[in-house]
Amino acid sequence: MPRARRGGDAYARAGVDVSKVRAIQSGLGALLSSTFANREGKFGQPAIGIGHYAGLIDIGGGRLLGMHTDGVGTKVLVAQEMGKFDTVGIDCVAMTVNDLICLGVEPAALLDYIALEREDDALVRQLSKGLAKGADESGTAIVGGETAILGDTIKGVGGRGFDLVSMGVGLVEKKAVIDGSKIRAGDRVLGIASSGLHSNGYTLARRLVRGLDLKKRVAELGMGLGESLLTPTRIYVKPTLKAIGKSDVHGIAHVTGGAFTKLTRLTGARKLRFSLTEIGDVRVPPIFGFLGRQGRMGRAEMYLTFNMGVGLCVVVPEGEEPEVLKAYRGSGFEGWEIGTIVEGEGVVVGSTRIS
Amino acid sequence: MPRARRGGDAYARAGVDVSKVRAIQSGLGALLSSTFANREGKFGQPAIGIGHYAGLIDIGGGRLLGMHTDGVGTKVLVAQEMGKFDTVGIDCVAMTVNDLICLGVEPAALLDYIALEREDDALVRQLSKGLAKGADESGTAIVGGETAILGDTIKGVGGRGFDLVSMGVGLVEKKAVIDGSKIRAGDRVLGIASSGLHSNGYTLARRLVRGLDLKKRVAELGMGLGESLLTPTRIYVKPTLKAIGKSDVHGIAHVTGGAFTKLTRLTGARKLRFSLTEIGDVRVPPIFGFLGRQGRMGRAEMYLTFNMGVGLCVVVPEGEEPEVLKAYRGSGFEGWEIGTIVEGEGVVVGSTRIS
Repeated sequence: MPRARRGGDAYARAGVDVSKVRAIQSGLGALLSSTFANREGKFGQPAIGIGHYAGLIDIGGGRLLGMHTDGVGTKVLVAQEMGKFDTVGIDCVAMTVNDLICLGVEPAALLDYIALEREDDALVRQLSKGLAKGADESGTAIVGGETAILGDTIKGVGGRGFDLVSMGVGLVEKKAVIDGSKIRAGDRVLGIASSGLHSNGYTLARRLVRGLDLKKRVAELGMGLGESLLTPTRIYVKPTLKAIGKSDVHGIAHVTGGAFTKLTRLTGARKLRFSLTEIGDVRVPPIFGFLGRQGRMGRAEMYLTFNMGVGLCVVVPEGEEPEVLKAYRGSGFEGWEIGTIVEGEGVVVGSTRIS
Repeated sequence: MPRARRGGDAYARAGVDVSKVRAIQSGLGALLSSTFANREGKFGQPAIGIGHYAGLIDIGGGRLLGMHTDGVGTKVLVAQEMGKFDTVGIDCVAMTVNDLICLGVEPAALLDYIALEREDDALVRQLSKGLAKGADESGTAIVGGETAILGDTIKGVGGRGFDLVSMGVGLVEKKAVIDGSKIRAGDRVLGIASSGLHSNGYTLARRLVRGLDLKKRVAELGMGLGESLLTPTRIYVKPTLKAIGKSDVHGIAHVTGGAFTKLTRLTGARKLRFSLTEIGDVRVPPIFGFLGRQGRMGRAEMYLTFNMGVGLCVVVPEGEEPEVLKAYRGSGFEGWEIGTIVEGEGVVVGSTRIS
């Protein structure tokens, strides 16, 4: 079976070495884990290693607090090029809460961090609109934040450079943590629809569309290119809480950086393979075909990089697929059966091994 | 009594309008508070308004979780100019945990966010060393984080630009929250020693030392200028927990952006004044005199901008001063009685009203 190159040619050309980023993060994790001893036997004792979708700490009474932080990344540059700032706050919330829900954590409260190139009250107001909308969609409260003017650190388009980050916490019962350890051969993999690029792959996407008019309507996209690129990340919290309530969900993966190659985070070193032979059934948003042609990217390479229409993967015991898909569809989220867990290793998309 | 100009001339010349920053943050707070309704009656219901030292959410059993985020700001530029990256992580932790302890919250767990101009494994390792040291000093665990390569958003010195932020949570019993509401006329104000600039005032400080050789030894500083500017922020968590255990502490203020003008955050609209007539007793680190002369700043202006040797203010009932100062001194933290709460409003430093 063909094996695609890890990391992706197109992505490397865009200046991001995904494997290097992972190496940095892993070295960091080892060093920082040494601090776990500081909470031994106290409130906040860490309950999971660094490197999963979120941190978990013990808050007593059989309950864990999930903690996670993430940013919008280079999607903020598209917002600056378009002069449209009221939706990236949704992405900012989505990146954090969608990762929390992967561990079964119900997100509860958020902080935001906005670093600005210059004071810009109007910009901050627009960003906040999106943040509040994301909080409402995810059922969370934004209880604080920081706005920093960092003219010597932040740059961007037309003096409106900014970085946008959120940090969130939420609750999960110890016995209800979904960390992938229950996944076994025969489980089914469901794909829940994305709205487009979400907040991942923008360093590459921006490179691929360089020189094109972002404001011009593109027939195959049914809208302008910039508008399509700015489509907010879907927030999967509410339907996923419903699904968890109805079914014995074995694993949940938010499809972001590293796209489908990251699924193996759920199964770790166990001899299990994500065999996504039915992924062809997914309705792929037209932006992906557009970008693929721009970059002359192969199909496998695209699944290494983009979510390709699947923003969330949910692994369930065979037979529970209909009930879980019903929970998502009832909330307006399309979903498909995209594959099966089999013995083996890595991730297969269609008939190509990508990881 | 003379009244200094709000905001400070020198700071405005450095391109930071402190009152504008506050206006942005307050407008943001109002919009984001609308999301509090999302947690009404649920885990994580907000228990304090936006704008105090930290957010507080209800986690049941009479307990609150404190949440706060802060960054190192432009001190990172000094680190870049000096090529020394192993201490700003301490500052990063300090900025978050010192704010949490102001509400009586014992910090427990942290996340870090590092945005980089380029992949730079060595840089991240150095930053992490400081983060781990700060966590150890504050008794916290770093349970996760995010490292983002944002070449089009982050800039700095020699390609080593970065932004460094932490987010922390901690525990406080509802009845033990220290929000300043118990402060009354006659209370005494204690000042706990800072190690220098901490992580505030660097946009101005960098402007004032522009053109000077950061690596050259300065006799009055007893070290190089850059080394002095990079001195890590002191972490007040452990001695403050001791002090809280021994005394009925009425209010705690971390002296950062806005310096002593921010003390009134503890007393709100109540008719109380911070009368810091004894602040002359404080041992002022020599860096402040050096910067003051560079910028020809007046004494009042300096107290609007810098901590002037006091990194933390602690308000206690009259008579409890010795016990509290003993708790800090026993942990190696010098402290002084710097003033009294009287009827009135604002903040008086020496004989000058600064707020």
